[in-house]
Amino acid sequence: MSEERSAVYQEIHHFYARQMRLLDEGRVAEWAETFEPDGVFDANGHPEPLRGREMIESGARKASERLAADGVQRRHWLGMLEVAERPDGTLFAQTYALILSTPRGGQASVHMSTTCADVLVRDEGTLRVRRRTVRRDDLAAADGGEN
Amino acid sequence: MSEERSAVYQEIHHFYARQMRLLDEGRVAEWAETFEPDGVFDANGHPEPLRGREMIESGARKASERLAADGVQRRHWLGMLEVAERPDGTLFAQTYALILSTPRGGQASVHMSTTCADVLVRDEGTLRVRRRTVRRDDLAAADGGEN
Amino acid sequence: MSEERSAVYQEIHHFYARQMRLLDEGRVAEWAETFEPDGVFDANGHPEPLRGREMIESGARKASERLAADGVQRRHWLGMLEVAERPDGTLFAQTYALILSTPRGGQASVHMSTTCADVLVRDEGTLRVRRRTVRRDDLAAADGGEN
Repeated sequence: MSEERSAVYQEIHHFYARQMRLLDEGRVAEWAETFEPDGVFDANGHPEPLRGREMIESGARKASERLAADGVQRRHWLGMLEVAERPDGTLFAQTYALILSTPRGGQASVHMSTTCADVLVRDEGTLRVRRRTVRRDDLAAADGGEN
Repeated sequence: MSEERSAVYQEIHHFYARQMRLLDEGRVAEWAETFEPDGVFDANGHPEPLRGREMIESGARKASERLAADGVQRRHWLGMLEVAERPDGTLFAQTYALILSTPRGGQASVHMSTTCADVLVRDEGTLRVRRRTVRRDDLAAADGGEN
Repeated sequence: MSEERSAVYQEIHHFYARQMRLLDEGRVAEWAETFEPDGVFDANGHPEPLRGREMIESGARKASERLAADGVQRRHWLGMLEVAERPDGTLFAQTYALILSTPRGGQASVHMSTTCADVLVRDEGTLRVRRRTVRRDDLAAADGGEN
Protein backbone atom coordinates (compact mmCIF):
# COMPACT_ATOMS: atom_id res chain seq x y z
CA MET A 1 0.00 0.00 0.00
CA SER A 2 1.41 3.41 -0.93
CA GLU A 3 1.96 5.89 1.89
CA GLU A 4 -0.52 8.25 0.25
CA ARG A 5 -3.21 5.59 0.07
CA SER A 6 -2.46 4.56 3.62
CA ALA A 7 -3.07 8.13 4.79
CA VAL A 8 -6.47 8.24 3.05
CA TYR A 9 -7.40 4.95 4.66
CA GLN A 10 -6.37 6.30 8.06
CA GLU A 11 -8.34 9.47 7.48
CA ILE A 12 -11.49 7.43 6.88
CA HIS A 13 -10.93 5.56 10.15
CA HIS A 14 -10.66 8.91 11.89
CA PHE A 15 -13.74 10.24 10.13
CA TYR A 16 -15.79 7.26 11.35
CA ALA A 17 -14.51 7.56 14.92
CA ARG A 18 -15.62 11.20 15.03
CA GLN A 19 -18.90 10.53 13.25
CA MET A 20 -19.97 7.71 15.56
CA ARG A 21 -18.86 9.57 18.69
CA LEU A 22 -21.04 12.54 17.68
CA LEU A 23 -24.04 10.23 17.27
CA ASP A 24 -23.46 8.30 20.49
CA GLU A 25 -23.05 11.54 22.46
CA GLY A 26 -26.31 12.88 21.08
CA ARG A 27 -24.65 15.68 19.10
CA VAL A 28 -27.09 15.06 16.28
CA ALA A 29 -26.78 18.34 14.35
CA GLU A 30 -22.99 17.96 14.11
CA TRP A 31 -23.45 14.31 13.18
CA ALA A 32 -25.83 15.22 10.36
CA GLU A 33 -23.19 17.60 8.97
CA THR A 34 -21.08 14.53 8.16
CA PHE A 35 -23.57 13.77 5.36
CA GLU A 36 -23.84 15.69 2.12
CA PRO A 37 -26.81 18.10 2.01
CA ASP A 38 -28.49 15.72 -0.45
CA GLY A 39 -27.05 12.57 1.18
CA VAL A 40 -29.04 9.34 1.42
CA PHE A 41 -29.23 6.97 4.40
CA ASP A 42 -30.58 3.65 3.22
CA ALA A 43 -31.06 1.09 6.02
CA ASN A 44 -33.02 -2.09 5.47
CA GLY A 45 -34.42 -1.67 8.99
CA HIS A 46 -36.26 1.46 7.78
CA PRO A 47 -39.36 1.41 5.57
CA GLU A 48 -37.55 3.58 2.99
CA PRO A 49 -34.28 5.50 2.59
CA LEU A 50 -33.93 8.86 4.32
CA ARG A 51 -33.17 11.52 1.69
CA GLY A 52 -31.35 14.75 2.49
CA ARG A 53 -29.58 15.97 5.60
CA GLU A 54 -32.76 17.29 7.22
CA MET A 55 -34.54 13.95 7.11
CA ILE A 56 -31.39 12.14 8.23
CA GLU A 57 -30.97 14.51 11.16
CA SER A 58 -34.62 14.31 12.13
CA GLY A 59 -34.56 10.50 12.16
CA ALA A 60 -31.44 10.40 14.29
CA ARG A 61 -32.81 13.00 16.69
CA LYS A 62 -35.89 10.90 17.45
CA ALA A 63 -33.77 7.82 18.10
CA SER A 64 -31.33 9.80 20.23
CA GLU A 65 -34.08 11.35 22.36
CA ARG A 66 -35.72 7.98 22.92
CA LEU A 67 -32.43 6.46 24.10
CA ALA A 68 -31.78 9.40 26.42
CA ALA A 69 -35.28 9.07 27.89
CA ASP A 70 -34.70 5.35 28.42
CA GLY A 71 -31.27 5.94 29.99
CA VAL A 72 -29.54 3.79 27.39
CA GLN A 73 -26.01 4.45 26.08
CA ARG A 74 -25.38 3.12 22.59
CA ARG A 75 -21.91 2.72 21.09
CA HIS A 76 -21.45 2.29 17.34
CA TRP A 77 -18.22 0.52 16.43
CA LEU A 78 -17.17 0.42 12.78
CA GLY A 79 -14.37 -1.92 11.82
CA MET A 80 -12.90 -4.22 9.16
CA LEU A 81 -12.61 -1.29 6.76
CA GLU A 82 -12.04 -1.84 3.04
CA VAL A 83 -11.69 1.16 0.76
CA ALA A 84 -11.78 1.41 -3.01
CA GLU A 85 -11.20 4.59 -4.98
CA ARG A 86 -13.68 4.89 -7.82
CA PRO A 87 -12.97 6.35 -11.24
CA ASP A 88 -15.25 9.33 -10.45
CA GLY A 89 -13.05 10.25 -7.47
CA THR A 90 -15.48 9.05 -4.81
CA LEU A 91 -14.41 6.54 -2.17
CA PHE A 92 -16.32 3.33 -1.56
CA ALA A 93 -15.85 2.29 2.08
CA GLN A 94 -17.16 -1.00 3.42
CA THR A 95 -17.24 -1.75 7.14
CA TYR A 96 -18.78 -4.05 9.72
CA ALA A 97 -20.82 -2.23 12.37
CA LEU A 98 -21.29 -3.50 15.89
CA ILE A 99 -23.78 -1.69 18.09
CA LEU A 100 -23.41 -2.07 21.86
CA SER A 101 -26.07 -1.02 24.31
CA THR A 102 -25.76 -0.31 28.04
CA PRO A 103 -28.71 0.63 30.24
CA ARG A 104 -27.86 2.94 33.15
CA GLY A 105 -27.02 0.72 36.11
CA GLY A 106 -27.20 -2.38 33.91
CA GLN A 107 -25.26 -4.83 31.79
CA ALA A 108 -23.68 -3.95 28.42
CA SER A 109 -24.63 -6.22 25.55
CA VAL A 110 -24.52 -6.58 21.79
CA HIS A 111 -27.50 -4.78 20.32
CA MET A 112 -26.98 -5.51 16.64
CA SER A 113 -24.51 -6.53 13.93
CA THR A 114 -24.77 -4.88 10.51
CA THR A 115 -22.71 -4.06 7.47
CA CYS A 116 -22.23 -0.50 6.28
CA ALA A 117 -21.26 0.56 2.74
CA ASP A 118 -20.59 4.25 2.17
CA VAL A 119 -19.96 6.40 -0.84
CA LEU A 120 -17.72 9.14 0.54
CA VAL A 121 -16.85 12.41 -1.17
CA ARG A 122 -14.38 15.14 -0.36
CA ASP A 123 -16.11 18.47 0.07
CA GLU A 124 -13.56 21.31 0.34
CA GLY A 125 -11.13 18.97 2.07
CA THR A 126 -13.72 17.43 4.40
CA LEU A 127 -15.00 13.89 3.96
CA ARG A 128 -18.78 13.47 3.88
CA VAL A 129 -21.19 10.63 3.22
CA ARG A 130 -23.06 10.84 -0.07
CA ARG A 131 -24.85 7.55 0.38
CA ARG A 132 -24.89 5.09 3.27
CA THR A 133 -26.26 1.56 2.89
CA VAL A 134 -26.80 -0.35 6.15
CA ARG A 135 -27.83 -4.01 6.09
CA ARG A 136 -28.79 -5.76 9.34
CA ASP A 137 -27.43 -9.26 9.79
CA ASP A 138 -30.75 -10.47 11.19
CA LEU A 139 -32.71 -9.54 8.05
CA ALA A 140 -32.61 -11.47 4.79
CA ALA A 141 -30.29 -10.03 2.15
CA ALA A 142 -33.13 -9.88 -0.40
CA ASP A 143 -33.39 -6.10 -0.36
CA GLY A 144 -30.17 -5.14 -2.10
CA GLY A 145 -30.90 -1.41 -2.15
CA GLU A 146 -30.13 0.88 -5.06
CA ASN A 147 -26.38 1.04 -4.49
CA MET B 1 6.63 4.84 13.62
CA SER B 2 8.10 5.50 10.16
CA GLU B 3 5.69 6.33 7.36
CA GLU B 4 6.81 3.24 5.47
CA ARG B 5 6.16 0.97 8.44
CA SER B 6 2.83 2.67 9.03
CA ALA B 7 1.82 1.84 5.45
CA VAL B 8 2.69 -1.85 5.94
CA TYR B 9 0.67 -1.93 9.15
CA GLN B 10 -2.27 -0.35 7.35
CA GLU B 11 -1.97 -2.83 4.50
CA ILE B 12 -2.28 -5.71 6.96
CA HIS B 13 -5.45 -4.15 8.41
CA HIS B 14 -6.84 -3.95 4.90
CA PHE B 15 -5.79 -7.53 4.13
CA TYR B 16 -7.66 -8.79 7.19
CA ALA B 17 -10.78 -6.78 6.38
CA ARG B 18 -10.92 -8.33 2.92
CA GLN B 19 -10.04 -11.81 4.15
CA MET B 20 -12.72 -11.91 6.84
CA ARG B 21 -15.35 -10.39 4.55
CA LEU B 22 -14.70 -13.13 1.98
CA LEU B 23 -15.19 -15.79 4.66
CA ASP B 24 -18.30 -14.21 6.17
CA GLU B 25 -19.88 -13.82 2.73
CA GLY B 26 -19.25 -17.46 1.95
CA ARG B 27 -16.73 -16.73 -0.83
CA VAL B 28 -14.63 -19.64 0.37
CA ALA B 29 -12.47 -20.24 -2.72
CA GLU B 30 -11.35 -16.60 -2.77
CA TRP B 31 -10.80 -16.73 0.97
CA ALA B 32 -8.59 -19.81 0.67
CA GLU B 33 -6.44 -17.92 -1.88
CA THR B 34 -5.35 -15.64 0.97
CA PHE B 35 -3.31 -18.56 2.31
CA GLU B 36 -0.08 -19.87 0.77
CA PRO B 37 -0.55 -23.10 -1.23
CA ASP B 38 1.26 -24.94 1.56
CA GLY B 39 -0.17 -22.73 4.32
CA VAL B 40 -1.11 -24.11 7.74
CA PHE B 41 -4.21 -23.29 9.82
CA ASP B 42 -3.62 -24.38 13.37
CA ALA B 43 -6.63 -23.83 15.67
CA ASN B 44 -6.77 -25.40 19.12
CA GLY B 45 -10.49 -26.00 18.53
CA HIS B 46 -9.56 -28.49 15.76
CA PRO B 47 -8.18 -31.99 16.39
CA GLU B 48 -5.09 -31.15 14.31
CA PRO B 49 -3.78 -28.35 12.05
CA LEU B 50 -5.15 -28.08 8.51
CA ARG B 51 -2.24 -28.33 6.06
CA GLY B 52 -2.34 -26.87 2.57
CA ARG B 53 -4.83 -24.62 0.84
CA GLU B 54 -7.08 -27.49 -0.24
CA MET B 55 -7.64 -28.75 3.28
CA ILE B 56 -8.09 -25.21 4.58
CA GLU B 57 -10.67 -24.48 1.88
CA SER B 58 -12.49 -27.73 2.44
CA GLY B 59 -12.76 -27.14 6.21
CA ALA B 60 -14.08 -23.62 5.70
CA ARG B 61 -16.56 -24.75 3.06
CA LYS B 62 -18.19 -27.24 5.41
CA ALA B 63 -18.51 -24.63 8.15
CA SER B 64 -19.84 -22.06 5.68
CA GLU B 65 -22.47 -24.43 4.26
CA ARG B 66 -23.65 -25.41 7.74
CA LEU B 67 -24.07 -21.76 8.72
CA ALA B 68 -25.97 -21.01 5.50
CA ALA B 69 -28.26 -24.01 6.11
CA ASP B 70 -28.88 -22.79 9.67
CA GLY B 71 -29.55 -19.21 8.50
CA VAL B 72 -26.75 -17.83 10.67
CA GLN B 73 -24.61 -14.83 9.74
CA ARG B 74 -21.16 -14.84 11.32
CA ARG B 75 -18.88 -11.79 11.46
CA HIS B 76 -15.19 -12.15 12.19
CA TRP B 77 -13.64 -9.00 13.64
CA LEU B 78 -9.86 -8.80 13.98
CA GLY B 79 -8.41 -6.00 16.05
CA MET B 80 -5.64 -4.89 18.42
CA LEU B 81 -3.05 -5.56 15.72
CA GLU B 82 0.64 -5.80 16.58
CA VAL B 83 3.15 -6.41 13.81
CA ALA B 84 6.80 -7.39 13.94
CA GLU B 85 9.07 -7.74 10.91
CA ARG B 86 11.23 -10.82 11.21
CA PRO B 87 14.82 -11.13 9.99
CA ASP B 88 13.71 -13.56 7.26
CA GLY B 89 11.41 -10.90 5.79
CA THR B 90 8.16 -12.46 7.01
CA LEU B 91 5.69 -10.47 9.10
CA PHE B 92 4.43 -11.71 12.45
CA ALA B 93 0.94 -10.27 13.04
CA GLN B 94 -0.91 -10.76 16.32
CA THR B 95 -4.57 -9.86 16.70
CA TYR B 96 -7.59 -10.43 18.88
CA ALA B 97 -10.52 -12.04 17.09
CA LEU B 98 -14.13 -11.51 18.04
CA ILE B 99 -16.75 -13.65 16.33
CA LEU B 100 -20.32 -12.38 16.29
CA SER B 101 -23.26 -14.52 15.32
CA THR B 102 -26.75 -13.47 14.20
CA PRO B 103 -29.53 -15.94 13.41
CA ARG B 104 -31.99 -14.77 10.73
CA GLY B 105 -34.79 -12.98 12.53
CA GLY B 106 -32.93 -13.22 15.84
CA GLN B 107 -30.58 -11.49 18.22
CA ALA B 108 -26.87 -10.86 17.49
CA SER B 109 -24.48 -12.10 20.16
CA VAL B 110 -20.85 -12.83 20.87
CA HIS B 111 -20.02 -16.29 19.60
CA MET B 112 -16.39 -16.53 20.62
CA SER B 113 -13.23 -14.64 21.60
CA THR B 114 -9.86 -15.89 20.36
CA THR B 115 -6.36 -14.73 19.61
CA CYS B 116 -4.85 -15.04 16.15
CA ALA B 117 -1.12 -15.10 15.34
CA ASP B 118 -0.16 -15.09 11.67
CA VAL B 119 3.07 -15.49 9.77
CA LEU B 120 2.45 -13.39 6.65
CA VAL B 121 4.54 -13.41 3.50
CA ARG B 122 4.54 -11.23 0.43
CA ASP B 123 3.94 -13.27 -2.70
CA GLU B 124 4.50 -11.16 -5.84
CA GLY B 125 3.26 -8.08 -4.00
CA THR B 126 0.26 -9.81 -2.40
CA LEU B 127 0.11 -10.66 1.30
CA ARG B 128 -0.73 -14.26 2.17
CA VAL B 129 -0.88 -16.34 5.34
CA ARG B 130 1.87 -18.92 5.68
CA ARG B 131 0.79 -20.08 9.11
CA ARG B 132 -2.20 -19.10 11.27
CA THR B 133 -2.40 -20.00 14.95
CA VAL B 134 -5.81 -19.50 16.57
CA ARG B 135 -6.25 -19.98 20.30
CA ARG B 136 -9.75 -19.92 21.81
CA ASP B 137 -10.12 -18.03 25.07
CA ASP B 138 -12.37 -20.72 26.51
CA LEU B 139 -9.73 -23.46 26.16
CA ALA B 140 -6.70 -23.85 28.39
CA ALA B 141 -3.46 -22.44 26.97
CA ALA B 142 -1.69 -25.79 27.43
CA ASP B 143 -1.55 -26.55 23.72
CA GLY B 144 0.97 -23.99 22.54
CA GLY B 145 1.08 -25.28 18.96
CA GLU B 146 4.23 -25.52 16.88
CA ASN B 147 4.61 -21.83 16.23
CA MET C 1 -4.62 13.63 6.64
CA SER C 2 -0.87 14.17 6.15
CA GLU C 3 1.32 11.09 5.92
CA GLU C 4 3.18 12.19 9.03
CA ARG C 5 -0.01 12.58 11.04
CA SER C 6 -1.25 9.25 9.73
CA ALA C 7 1.91 7.57 11.03
CA VAL C 8 1.39 9.04 14.52
CA TYR C 9 -2.20 7.84 14.49
CA GLN C 10 -1.05 4.37 13.48
CA GLU C 11 1.60 4.36 16.17
CA ILE C 12 -1.06 5.04 18.82
CA HIS C 13 -3.11 2.10 17.51
CA HIS C 14 -0.04 -0.09 17.84
CA PHE C 15 0.71 1.26 21.32
CA TYR C 16 -2.80 0.35 22.50
CA ALA C 17 -2.62 -3.13 20.97
CA ARG C 18 0.58 -3.85 22.86
CA GLN C 19 -0.64 -2.22 26.07
CA MET C 20 -3.89 -4.17 26.22
CA ARG C 21 -2.21 -7.45 25.26
CA LEU C 22 0.25 -7.03 28.15
CA LEU C 23 -2.65 -6.50 30.57
CA ASP C 24 -4.76 -9.36 29.24
CA GLU C 25 -1.77 -11.74 29.38
CA GLY C 26 -1.11 -10.80 32.99
CA ARG C 27 2.24 -9.11 32.23
CA VAL C 28 1.37 -6.40 34.72
CA ALA C 29 4.85 -4.93 35.37
CA GLU C 30 5.43 -4.39 31.63
CA TRP C 31 1.92 -2.99 31.34
CA ALA C 32 2.55 -0.49 34.14
CA GLU C 33 5.65 0.72 32.26
CA THR C 34 3.31 2.10 29.60
CA PHE C 35 2.30 4.79 32.10
CA GLU C 36 4.48 7.72 33.15
CA PRO C 37 6.09 7.27 36.60
CA ASP C 38 3.68 9.91 37.93
CA GLY C 39 0.82 8.86 35.64
CA VAL C 40 -2.81 8.93 36.78
CA PHE C 41 -5.50 6.32 36.12
CA ASP C 42 -8.88 7.85 36.79
CA ALA C 43 -11.80 5.41 36.37
CA ASN C 44 -15.26 6.28 37.60
CA GLY C 45 -15.63 2.64 38.69
CA HIS C 46 -12.90 3.27 41.31
CA PRO C 47 -13.44 5.23 44.54
CA GLU C 48 -10.60 7.61 43.55
CA PRO C 49 -7.92 7.97 40.86
CA LEU C 50 -4.80 5.80 41.11
CA ARG C 51 -1.75 8.08 41.25
CA GLY C 52 1.72 6.96 40.18
CA ARG C 53 2.94 3.86 38.41
CA GLU C 54 3.25 1.83 41.62
CA MET C 55 -0.38 2.30 42.61
CA ILE C 56 -1.50 1.65 39.03
CA GLU C 57 0.53 -1.55 38.87
CA SER C 58 -0.67 -2.73 42.26
CA GLY C 59 -4.34 -2.20 41.33
CA ALA C 60 -3.93 -4.07 38.06
CA ARG C 61 -2.05 -6.91 39.73
CA LYS C 62 -4.89 -7.58 42.16
CA ALA C 63 -7.43 -7.64 39.33
CA SER C 64 -5.19 -9.86 37.21
CA GLU C 65 -4.61 -12.37 40.01
CA ARG C 66 -8.33 -12.56 40.77
CA LEU C 67 -9.13 -13.28 37.11
CA ALA C 68 -6.42 -15.96 36.93
CA ALA C 69 -7.77 -17.59 40.09
CA ASP C 70 -11.28 -17.55 38.63
CA GLY C 71 -10.07 -18.96 35.29
CA VAL C 72 -11.42 -15.96 33.37
CA GLN C 73 -9.78 -14.53 30.24
CA ARG C 74 -10.48 -10.84 29.68
CA ARG C 75 -9.84 -9.05 26.37
CA HIS C 76 -9.69 -5.26 26.22
CA TRP C 77 -10.49 -3.89 22.77
CA LEU C 78 -9.90 -0.20 22.09
CA GLY C 79 -11.35 1.28 18.94
CA MET C 80 -12.89 4.31 17.27
CA LEU C 81 -9.71 6.28 17.90
CA GLU C 82 -9.66 10.07 17.59
CA VAL C 83 -6.41 11.93 18.16
CA ALA C 84 -5.74 15.62 18.68
CA GLU C 85 -2.29 17.14 19.05
CA ARG C 86 -2.27 19.74 21.82
CA PRO C 87 -0.25 22.95 21.82
CA ASP C 88 1.96 21.60 24.63
CA GLY C 89 3.01 18.67 22.43
CA THR C 90 0.93 16.05 24.24
CA LEU C 91 -1.54 13.88 22.34
CA PHE C 92 -5.17 13.60 23.38
CA ALA C 93 -6.48 10.19 22.33
CA GLN C 94 -10.13 9.23 22.69
CA THR C 95 -11.33 5.66 22.23
CA TYR C 96 -14.21 3.34 22.93
CA ALA C 97 -13.29 0.32 25.05
CA LEU C 98 -15.05 -3.01 24.87
CA ILE C 99 -14.17 -5.61 27.47
CA LEU C 100 -14.91 -9.24 26.65
CA SER C 101 -14.83 -12.00 29.22
CA THR C 102 -14.52 -15.76 28.71
CA PRO C 103 -14.59 -18.28 31.56
CA ARG C 104 -12.51 -21.41 30.97
CA GLY C 105 -14.80 -23.96 29.36
CA GLY C 106 -17.57 -21.36 29.03
CA GLN C 107 -19.20 -18.80 26.79
CA ALA C 108 -17.55 -15.49 25.82
CA SER C 109 -19.65 -12.40 26.50
CA VAL C 110 -19.51 -8.62 26.70
CA HIS C 111 -18.31 -7.63 30.15
CA MET C 112 -18.45 -3.87 29.83
CA SER C 113 -18.51 -0.87 27.50
CA THR C 114 -16.57 2.26 28.46
CA THR C 115 -14.91 5.29 26.97
CA CYS C 116 -11.23 6.00 27.43
CA ALA C 117 -9.54 9.40 27.12
CA ASP C 118 -5.75 9.49 27.36
CA VAL C 119 -3.16 12.22 27.54
CA LEU C 120 -0.15 10.62 25.87
CA VAL C 121 3.40 11.91 25.95
CA ARG C 122 6.53 10.89 24.10
CA ASP C 123 9.28 9.88 26.51
CA GLU C 124 12.59 9.36 24.67
CA GLY C 125 10.73 8.16 21.61
CA THR C 126 8.33 5.91 23.51
CA LEU C 127 4.66 6.75 23.99
CA ARG C 128 3.36 6.64 27.56
CA VAL C 129 0.11 7.52 29.31
CA ARG C 130 0.27 10.62 31.49
CA ARG C 131 -3.39 10.51 32.41
CA ARG C 132 -6.12 8.01 31.61
CA THR C 133 -9.80 8.76 32.15
CA VAL C 134 -12.16 5.80 31.90
CA ARG C 135 -15.92 6.28 32.05
CA ARG C 136 -18.22 3.27 32.27
CA ASP C 137 -21.33 3.40 30.11
CA ASP C 138 -23.46 1.95 32.91
CA LEU C 139 -22.67 4.80 35.32
CA ALA C 140 -24.11 8.29 35.11
CA ALA C 141 -21.88 10.87 33.45
CA ALA C 142 -22.11 13.20 36.47
CA ASP C 143 -18.52 12.59 37.59
CA GLY C 144 -16.62 14.34 34.84
CA GLY C 145 -13.20 13.84 36.45
CA GLU C 146 -10.45 16.44 36.51
CA ASN C 147 -9.45 16.16 32.88
